[in-house]
Amino acid sequence: MKQFATFLLAVLCQSALATDTPKNIIMIVGDGMGPAYTTAYRMYADDPSTPEVEKTVFDRLLVGMASTHPDLVSGYVTDSAAGATALSTGVKSYNGAIAVDVNKKTVLTVLELAKMQGRKTGVAVTSEVNHATPASFGSHNESRKNYDQIANSYFDDKIKGQFVLDVMLGGGWKYFIREDRNLVDQFKAAGYQYVDELTQLETVKAGTPLLGLFADTGMPWALDSVDQMRLPILAKAAVRQLENDQGYFLLIEASQVDWGGHSNDIGAAMAEMHDLALTLEWLEQYIEKNPDTLMVLTADHSTGGLTIGVNGNYRWEPKWLKNLKASPSEIATQLMTAKDLEALANDLLGFALTKEEIASLNVIESDKPKAFYKAISKILDNRTFTGWTTTGHTGVDVQIFAKGLGSERFNGHMDNTDIAQTVFELLRNKK
Amino acid sequence: MKQFATFLLAVLCQSALATDTPKNIIMIVGDGMGPAYTTAYRMYADDPSTPEVEKTVFDRLLVGMASTHPDLVSGYVTDSAAGATALSTGVKSYNGAIAVDVNKKTVLTVLELAKMQGRKTGVAVTSEVNHATPASFGSHNESRKNYDQIANSYFDDKIKGQFVLDVMLGGGWKYFIREDRNLVDQFKAAGYQYVDELTQLETVKAGTPLLGLFADTGMPWALDSVDQMRLPILAKAAVRQLENDQGYFLLIEASQVDWGGHSNDIGAAMAEMHDLALTLEWLEQYIEKNPDTLMVLTADHSTGGLTIGVNGNYRWEPKWLKNLKASPSEIATQLMTAKDLEALANDLLGFALTKEEIASLNVIESDKPKAFYKAISKILDNRTFTGWTTTGHTGVDVQIFAKGLGSERFNGHMDNTDIAQTVFELLRNKK
Repeated sequence: MKQFATFLLAVLCQSALATDTPKNIIMIVGDGMGPAYTTAYRMYADDPSTPEVEKTVFDRLLVGMASTHPDLVSGYVTDSAAGATALSTGVKSYNGAIAVDVNKKTVLTVLELAKMQGRKTGVAVTSEVNHATPASFGSHNESRKNYDQIANSYFDDKIKGQFVLDVMLGGGWKYFIREDRNLVDQFKAAGYQYVDELTQLETVKAGTPLLGLFADTGMPWALDSVDQMRLPILAKAAVRQLENDQGYFLLIEASQVDWGGHSNDIGAAMAEMHDLALTLEWLEQYIEKNPDTLMVLTADHSTGGLTIGVNGNYRWEPKWLKNLKASPSEIATQLMTAKDLEALANDLLGFALTKEEIASLNVIESDKPKAFYKAISKILDNRTFTGWTTTGHTGVDVQIFAKGLGSERFNGHMDNTDIAQTVFELLRNKK
Repeated sequence: MKQFATFLLAVLCQSALATDTPKNIIMIVGDGMGPAYTTAYRMYADDPSTPEVEKTVFDRLLVGMASTHPDLVSGYVTDSAAGATALSTGVKSYNGAIAVDVNKKTVLTVLELAKMQGRKTGVAVTSEVNHATPASFGSHNESRKNYDQIANSYFDDKIKGQFVLDVMLGGGWKYFIREDRNLVDQFKAAGYQYVDELTQLETVKAGTPLLGLFADTGMPWALDSVDQMRLPILAKAAVRQLENDQGYFLLIEASQVDWGGHSNDIGAAMAEMHDLALTLEWLEQYIEKNPDTLMVLTADHSTGGLTIGVNGNYRWEPKWLKNLKASPSEIATQLMTAKDLEALANDLLGFALTKEEIASLNVIESDKPKAFYKAISKILDNRTFTGWTTTGHTGVDVQIFAKGLGSERFNGHMDNTDIAQTVFELLRNKK
């Protein structure tokens, strides 16, 4: 009898949940953020004055994991385009594909369906707004490399006579203000507000279409931003512009976790994770106040083969990353012209370098900062006991994090295409 | 109103579930099995004749993830002893601790509580039965290295006048048949059946105490076993012996996934994963037939810094691991005395080596197989695009997999100590 009662309750719960239709859907991509990143971030964020390791927002939101392989024409390891296409369309495609299938045929995205239904739509990212991940939600192209075409499509393509994206926040002057075409002017003429400084976001008129571009290509590293918390600023501004009675669909991307991984730069990667964590903490509160909203976060893949521990050492020591005054990349640039290399390195890294570490910098004779960047990254890897295996992506499953209406549908193991299919189902539930 | 109804149902479900008390609890540890292992295994097990990547038993059972750090006196990266102690006692301890806390004080284990309650208890592992993981469930010691003391304790320690373990299956002659003490004879005199060949497990008398030791130390690699599926044999035999009206607690460990990781040996590691997967597939069916049983699987940590893809390549090609006729370690031993090195290597590896690969073997002049082992592992890494960063452990979170009565309690993120605490709660629910 008890078993039957439990079964009945389970069925009732399921059917109650089956009618859930979030008004607003916020999808978030931590580009390149595999399980080693969220774990490392917990250690990085750990308060050393307590005996516990504090749980993070990622821990509070974890619900499942996703496989990320692209269509097998591209093997088992995805790029960001095929990964984002899976997440936006529910279809596996080849590496490089922007919301097209293996036959290069356009496939409907969740963002487009949301727009067709009368929702407002937006992207808020720290890469270019026309980079692979946002592009896969708001555009279609046979190649992620066709940046100009993708930027053009944001203006030229229409859904029910309207622009695809009501809000675009991120980098990309290079692609929007070109010799052959000035998309910024065109968007302004079409009624979009345009801003090119983060502080301007505080004063834009709420609820109106908005184009905000804050860098030539990707935005500066979190570590090099005047206000390091740039993704929360973008996310909050996007939500403010998008909120309306018909609901909205917003894609947020912490784009540069991936770039830290590609550069094997643990310092930059952890700061990007912090930028994302702060965004999620704000979104957590937002969902508490707006329970008709769903947020779902995943990664497209992991990057760099990051490992917490290396060369036989059972150690990881993130404390050396906590006092960086600039990104390792920026530190490298500044060291190029240093009068007192040791003093400047000590100051910018936030700790006193050993003789061997100074020596590793002193031998560098180069007219480009790359060698310094490599040497600094090596110093940080050695001190923190961080390992890497590649400057590319790896195939490890990534996590799924969710909160809000419908979030229980993302529990357990899913393929990345299942995530999009579930979002489609939730959208189609709309009455 | 609908929201309230949903809330009410959720509360009712929760309280219905709160009274769940599994009769039998099977904890399973995939030693060293981080997320890269289960993902790689999906690709390894993938049927290349279909366009999909088939889901695995791990995918069907995934419910959450766990943090694995030991007590911070040992930093952020755990060893198997502290990891297993967290999983068996719910207490963080130092690396090397066997079910003792940081003050070396004995801490109750879930297996011991189950025994106190009148359940039968057992361990079935591919390492020595007195290795760190099983030891942390059935013994207490300040150091995992005290193998003789731990083996002795299995005979000397009693719970309510009874032996701690009714069933012990795995390796360990070295520690049970010693010059100073023959524990096998003692167990036999105390009424235990003793077997030392896997085939004998088919004919032991069901329901009686059983000691089965099948190797001097750990059991041979899955790839070198006559019947490669040795863990399912051990698991089935253990369950057969333990089943009784009062229920049982069984620890199963796929011990050698970790050893593949320590050796950076992808071929051995994937075969060990297959051995575990087959065990889980059998357990899945067992739980279907015995819904009053809970199985919960996790890892103590990940090993080797395994990555799926390396050196900038967006590829992973497990096909080169599918035709191995022996473990890379065994192949190395055989190559030492090969008359025709190329022919033997081609035969045992299951593919034709390139001139460069043969050359990498021909230059080896050594009286030990280690150099051959390293060279073969390198060939397999290169062909499969496998990366490693360490011969030790890493700190990445591991997954939790569960099925059966109470399994929903392991959803989402937990600390490894929470897993033990939850098992304690389930045990204490017993009426």
